[in-house]
Amino acid sequence: MIEPAYHDFYAGRRVLITGGLGFIGSNLAHRLVSLNARVLLVDSLVPDYGGNPFNVQDIRDAVTINVADIRDQHAMRYLVQGQDIIFNLAGQISHIDSMRDPYTDLEINCRSQLSLLEACRHNNPEAKIIYASTRQVYGKPRYLPVDEEHLAWPTDVNGINKLAGERYHLVYSQVYGLQATSLRLTNTYGPRQLLCHNRQGFIGWFIRQAIDGEEIQLFGDGRQVRDLTYVDDVVEAFLLAGFSDQVNGQIFNLGGLQPISLRDLVELLLKTVGAGSYRLVPFPDEKRAIDIGDFYANYDRIRRVLGWEPRVGIEEGLARTVEFYRAHRQHYWSRCINPLEVP
Amino acid sequence: MIEPAYHDFYAGRRVLITGGLGFIGSNLAHRLVSLNARVLLVDSLVPDYGGNPFNVQDIRDAVTINVADIRDQHAMRYLVQGQDIIFNLAGQISHIDSMRDPYTDLEINCRSQLSLLEACRHNNPEAKIIYASTRQVYGKPRYLPVDEEHLAWPTDVNGINKLAGERYHLVYSQVYGLQATSLRLTNTYGPRQLLCHNRQGFIGWFIRQAIDGEEIQLFGDGRQVRDLTYVDDVVEAFLLAGFSDQVNGQIFNLGGLQPISLRDLVELLLKTVGAGSYRLVPFPDEKRAIDIGDFYANYDRIRRVLGWEPRVGIEEGLARTVEFYRAHRQHYWSRCINPLEVP
Repeated sequence: MIEPAYHDFYAGRRVLITGGLGFIGSNLAHRLVSLNARVLLVDSLVPDYGGNPFNVQDIRDAVTINVADIRDQHAMRYLVQGQDIIFNLAGQISHIDSMRDPYTDLEINCRSQLSLLEACRHNNPEAKIIYASTRQVYGKPRYLPVDEEHLAWPTDVNGINKLAGERYHLVYSQVYGLQATSLRLTNTYGPRQLLCHNRQGFIGWFIRQAIDGEEIQLFGDGRQVRDLTYVDDVVEAFLLAGFSDQVNGQIFNLGGLQPISLRDLVELLLKTVGAGSYRLVPFPDEKRAIDIGDFYANYDRIRRVLGWEPRVGIEEGLARTVEFYRAHRQHYWSRCINPLEVP
Repeated sequence: MIEPAYHDFYAGRRVLITGGLGFIGSNLAHRLVSLNARVLLVDSLVPDYGGNPFNVQDIRDAVTINVADIRDQHAMRYLVQGQDIIFNLAGQISHIDSMRDPYTDLEINCRSQLSLLEACRHNNPEAKIIYASTRQVYGKPRYLPVDEEHLAWPTDVNGINKLAGERYHLVYSQVYGLQATSLRLTNTYGPRQLLCHNRQGFIGWFIRQAIDGEEIQLFGDGRQVRDLTYVDDVVEAFLLAGFSDQVNGQIFNLGGLQPISLRDLVELLLKTVGAGSYRLVPFPDEKRAIDIGDFYANYDRIRRVLGWEPRVGIEEGLARTVEFYRAHRQHYWSRCINPLEVP
């Protein structure tokens, strides 16, 4: 394997990951530890969100963990200081939750982002900041694949607030010279994802149901197309962006190796697991109203600028994922986080 | 003059205007009173914002005034009840202020909009809501004239938050069936605008300086092009939108009769006033960073759907405006609002 360009860059660097005990944050932390970075993980451990102490159990002696909410302005003001790179992944990510409680989504995805940026502006203007945005900002595609020039027309409160959070990063880059970049993630899957409820996206929940031999319900005709990115590929994009000087003030789509219908995805999953079944059911009202039809992203821009592209195919990604959850099921199945486990 | 289609529609209707003591809100209130609507004006009278009791002095017996902040969730929950049409104009509109204090801008332009929509959703789902958005959501134009398909790429926090506020309206329309519409206003000018400081746009301040015989400072070469809408034309657009069933869930640009460079505008203004002078000066840093270059809007969509177009030319509009401020100078010049005047 060719060593990535950033191979030596992260050694000894001070890296802060917000949402560091969550799905992508903890996978990123594992890579950074292997690159000998000095890693600080900040996570709120809000129940029902993605933070899970088990996610970093095997690296807990190699990282610093600070439990704090990014809504906590004073904590963040302190924690950003001296950091070379900030991977800003903390967020409320459930679309359904954002419609049930739009204020909390606003606090986390808008106000807290402003706080973080204000903290950097005043206390660490040299930091590089990579923000985790989402394809949700596009809403229902007008054309496929969706590139970064596509209108942002979110269909739910979460998409609106994530868009605002992203724009703050870009405006603070433009106006105050902060080195901020936004990656628009599509459906990410892999080990260490929250699986204790089904409000954080469909893939994780399908995987759990398949492993349990349950019947998966597909809404509509199951022909909706999505692109999926395996979490290691997403981690790679963050590492490349954090290392690059070419990305400040810009947004980049990530994407998947190839689009797949939900039905094909589920069939592949059931084959991988060797159990389970699925059934087509009509869309529930609350989901239909914010559904976006087919989606897959054009990721030419990040390929051109950073040389990134997804490498892990869906078959391999699913196999690795299923293997992980079979080995660690008890830490993901039974309940959302248990405060007693806080490291 | 041909009677507008809505002529009889507003008689006896219950109409709420948020920001009702402000510039556009109070002009709208005057028209609605003349149409025999039952008008409730809600305004926070935040110092330095646009609310000014003098704006409605001549109609104060014909309207109901409720001083309340749209951030006040409980007040708004009560006040929206029973209203047929809600013209939602309250906002923090200074770009500069939004950069100095992004949190207040967030509270007013995002959180309060959510509150209003939640209030309507739970207590008055039948109300028609017309939201005052802004061309600021587009940021720096990629092409001219800017139509509604143009990417929204705001260059300051105010633009980001106004965009979020607008999107909430559209999502609540899509998901909950609220009858919400957004009008994207360009530079509006006319009587009853805030002129006690210069952080709410350039036109009002130029008018004030011209009347005072002061030297107007134009940034850069003064060749930046803008479109201006006289406030009566903006009021007409709100009345048409409030009357129409064709506009729910949509956005519409307003625009001006014809684009004009700031230099030509100022020369016309000085001629109208018969006094003053101007000088070109370099852009101050904080303004350059959020400047958008030339802007003028394509308003074909609202012309097609509602038959709206601007009617008041810039010469006539400036003449009427100057006449108004000469007659009422003491209520606009000396200071921002005086709480003792609260009606």
